[in-house]
Amino acid sequence: MGETLRVGVAGLGTVGAETARLLIERADALAAHAGRPIAVTAVSARDRTRDRGVDLSRVAWEEDATALAARDDVDLVCELIGGSDGVAKILVERALAAGKHVVTANKALLAHHGTVLARIGEAHGVTLAYESAVAGGIPIIRALREGLVVNRVTRVYGILNGTCNYILSAMRESGRDFADVLAEAQALGYAEADPAFDVDGVDAAHKLALLAALAYGREVDFDTVHIEGIRPISPIDIAYADEFGFRIKLLGIAEETEAGVRQRVHPCLVRQDAPIAQVEGVFNAVVVEGDAVGTTLHYGRGAGAGPTASAVIGDVVDVAAGRRAPVFGRPASALLPANPAAMETLESGYYVRLMVTDRPGVLADVTAILRDEHVSMESMLQRGRDPMETVPVALTTHEVDEASMRRALAKIAKLEAVREAPAMLRIVEF
Amino acid sequence: MGETLRVGVAGLGTVGAETARLLIERADALAAHAGRPIAVTAVSARDRTRDRGVDLSRVAWEEDATALAARDDVDLVCELIGGSDGVAKILVERALAAGKHVVTANKALLAHHGTVLARIGEAHGVTLAYESAVAGGIPIIRALREGLVVNRVTRVYGILNGTCNYILSAMRESGRDFADVLAEAQALGYAEADPAFDVDGVDAAHKLALLAALAYGREVDFDTVHIEGIRPISPIDIAYADEFGFRIKLLGIAEETEAGVRQRVHPCLVRQDAPIAQVEGVFNAVVVEGDAVGTTLHYGRGAGAGPTASAVIGDVVDVAAGRRAPVFGRPASALLPANPAAMETLESGYYVRLMVTDRPGVLADVTAILRDEHVSMESMLQRGRDPMETVPVALTTHEVDEASMRRALAKIAKLEAVREAPAMLRIVEF
Repeated sequence: MGETLRVGVAGLGTVGAETARLLIERADALAAHAGRPIAVTAVSARDRTRDRGVDLSRVAWEEDATALAARDDVDLVCELIGGSDGVAKILVERALAAGKHVVTANKALLAHHGTVLARIGEAHGVTLAYESAVAGGIPIIRALREGLVVNRVTRVYGILNGTCNYILSAMRESGRDFADVLAEAQALGYAEADPAFDVDGVDAAHKLALLAALAYGREVDFDTVHIEGIRPISPIDIAYADEFGFRIKLLGIAEETEAGVRQRVHPCLVRQDAPIAQVEGVFNAVVVEGDAVGTTLHYGRGAGAGPTASAVIGDVVDVAAGRRAPVFGRPASALLPANPAAMETLESGYYVRLMVTDRPGVLADVTAILRDEHVSMESMLQRGRDPMETVPVALTTHEVDEASMRRALAKIAKLEAVREAPAMLRIVEF
Repeated sequence: MGETLRVGVAGLGTVGAETARLLIERADALAAHAGRPIAVTAVSARDRTRDRGVDLSRVAWEEDATALAARDDVDLVCELIGGSDGVAKILVERALAAGKHVVTANKALLAHHGTVLARIGEAHGVTLAYESAVAGGIPIIRALREGLVVNRVTRVYGILNGTCNYILSAMRESGRDFADVLAEAQALGYAEADPAFDVDGVDAAHKLALLAALAYGREVDFDTVHIEGIRPISPIDIAYADEFGFRIKLLGIAEETEAGVRQRVHPCLVRQDAPIAQVEGVFNAVVVEGDAVGTTLHYGRGAGAGPTASAVIGDVVDVAAGRRAPVFGRPASALLPANPAAMETLESGYYVRLMVTDRPGVLADVTAILRDEHVSMESMLQRGRDPMETVPVALTTHEVDEASMRRALAKIAKLEAVREAPAMLRIVEF
């Protein structure tokens, strides 16, 4: 048995407390796996009196989390505070610079500062690991970084936000609208009081930027991720999608194209029989398409104390066992610069739903515009009739570039008979 | 950059050739990932003249694969010959004993000799890696051994044989019988000329024994795996299963019970909406149920040159990068002895299909026997009527111990109106 790896846990929310509990209660088993003991020597949290379900009486406490970076009895810091800046960032920077390994669940921090932090870690010869930052308990980071390392990744995509997936699943099952289901999700604890990060797609975009950096060996490039959330999804679109044979999922997609690496987070229509379409509720799934391995899918819980702690401790045991990998799969100095592909160059099928005055000639106008922009319609549905009232019309198109589609939609929106801004969703084929 | 890792590839079938090709053609990218060059220095195959799609003119050739173990210019041997004994075993033993790392896709070898080989590798300080031996390109070994390491695994199960899954999928879709679909699978190259290892469940059992050793930290225990194959599955059972809301899948299941670790491979009825039921054709999937992470599912191609080579090279890069893990997750000396649970102690629901003479009183006799053995019937289906002719009757039971179920079936089989041996399949709930 080697020397004890001494762990400081910063942040004792549900994830931090569960991480500390498992590290302490399963110390013997983890030591057998790692080949050396792992001990929690220090923690940091504001409220020292709260019962967290774990005995921390023999562990040093720090009021200020950043102090963990300076402690001589800490070899590895678990950063479970969160946030792209502030205390979490200072702690991670200082810990790495002090030659301490860092394991973090903080996707926002890494999406914004991942490349710089990777450089700091490498300069000081320590590990920066973040399995828990993407898709919770699913071991997708090590799969991409190690297991599938020989593959050229053509595409990596996934359901990366359990809150959005829960809301979309519930909307489809119940026919209720977004606001109603969001309120329920908040009551059940599946959505935050301030849901913006989740439902506007930002959280999924953080995770996507990390997957893309790993898959393509490029610097983390969060700023160019195209992000659309799920607020605009209406029950009528879910019903139409169903009639066309699709489900609506919020996906994060990174793909290598001739124009560069495109990163996008938006609601998508996916065919009902696609494996990703079967992922319901709070579950996450990540699909990797590699030229050697083909398609692999990795499914599990994307959040929660247990799944997140599971991933955090996997990283801690790697450090204890001396298993090291570059943060984004290759040394930070060897990462290529970001090379973002503009959304306008996307080739995709589209779903469009219009609210139109039900009178003769409207569809002729719409289809003429599509023809003029070389958009080829695949199917069209108008449910019911209601002369001179506003009715929905939905259509899907064959593959066309996004620039043409947007031009067509801008013209369609100006038609007098079109009563609302058109709803547009991209169709993603697998 | 460190010293070059020198690789010898034993066996140049489709997997070996693809492994050599990717190692050679992607040497630069792999070196960036590993932090040191990886070079193929020697290969072994019988026919030196065959075009394998890769230039091996600058690589040493050995007629006798076992000679790779003695070469000074080989640090790591990829054993891609196959077979539980013979050349593959001699090569692996000698390579490990000579202080060379071994990466193997050979599930049969490890199922039979894994614990002993792990000891030899550890004694000589070298790695024995086998990601490619289980579920092809899916990185499930590292997921279980590293990513999910803190979890107590309650159950690990999966579709571990693509041939069987292809045959069952095709039988369901076409309504054809086993022999017919097997012949087609052989023509398409999805089944071997001698299909016994696959269709009789032996290949799945090899893989299951490795997953169980990893999940439960016990010595590999292939000999006590309960194995049933898919030959007895008839179209009538697939149709009844469908009516009851199930699909039939050949699963390998390892589970910790009060009686010990039960390992079993047999056709199962799984609910149509279970994620594992969605896995069709030649795909594999492995589900891990851990107490912290919950349920994770890992899906991909279970065989083929590309997926297998992908997994082999993941292991090679681990060795090159100095990432090491004990063969079965903990040192061989710390593995617990096998502790098999007998099938008789299984608690399960059952599907039973009888061929009976269609006359009054038969079902009364059957249900009386079930009652006497405390087997509680859940549902029953008799399709059509044909007085005094032989007709099928299918039923499902609530959970009961297998010993009771077998006693009941033995009695039912002796009823005069029961014209064939009863078909029995276990229902697996997720």
